[in-house]
Amino acid sequence: MKKINFLSKFNKFNDKWSPKVIAEMNDYQFKLAKIENKFIWHCHENTDEVFVVLEGKMGIEFEDETVELEAGEMIVVPKGKKHKPFSEKEAKIMLVEPRGVLNTGEVESELTAENDEWI
Amino acid sequence: MKKINFLSKFNKFNDKWSPKVIAEMNDYQFKLAKIENKFIWHCHENTDEVFVVLEGKMGIEFEDETVELEAGEMIVVPKGKKHKPFSEKEAKIMLVEPRGVLNTGEVESELTAENDEWI
Repeated sequence: MKKINFLSKFNKFNDKWSPKVIAEMNDYQFKLAKIENKFIWHCHENTDEVFVVLEGKMGIEFEDETVELEAGEMIVVPKGKKHKPFSEKEAKIMLVEPRGVLNTGEVESELTAENDEWI
Repeated sequence: MKKINFLSKFNKFNDKWSPKVIAEMNDYQFKLAKIENKFIWHCHENTDEVFVVLEGKMGIEFEDETVELEAGEMIVVPKGKKHKPFSEKEAKIMLVEPRGVLNTGEVESELTAENDEWI
């Protein structure tokens, strides 16, 4: 039985917008990401997606509103809902989603990260 | 789109070992719990279970070892694995598991909490 320490895991990478898998429960994955500046508009057609802010602040643009989040807050983005995450300064976040979900959803982009990359 | 603030949610209840649902993604639920002293031995036959420590410290006894966790750490308890959570002082944790999972698993106990209680 191995516990997972978020800070230790964050020390293992520095690339932004490139979620790293730290744990799996059933067929769901927990991923950590460092984010800064703007991501791209995208959605995930087949699944909701959870964002948990662990350090710093981030925002998520939706087509009709923008939600600002800080450490100690989370949000569930419903499946199919277009969103564009952003962060003025580096923030550290955790994502929860089914195994196999690409970070840019249905969009092919230079920001599309390798999937299922464990640290 | 509504964000969820963990501290605000924790201010809404004080009972121990009684997970409250704060969010749902697909058929999975995110629950907050305050814990103190010892829980009971139990397991969940059909699902893994995630513990994330948000404040304080906790431990989980397994049949062959004990894992100590503090804020900023998480663990995945595999399905079918007997475990007994404990915390000397009050700790605040988040659980992630499929909708419908009872806190005492296969054991009927006075600590069995009402299921699907949202805050």
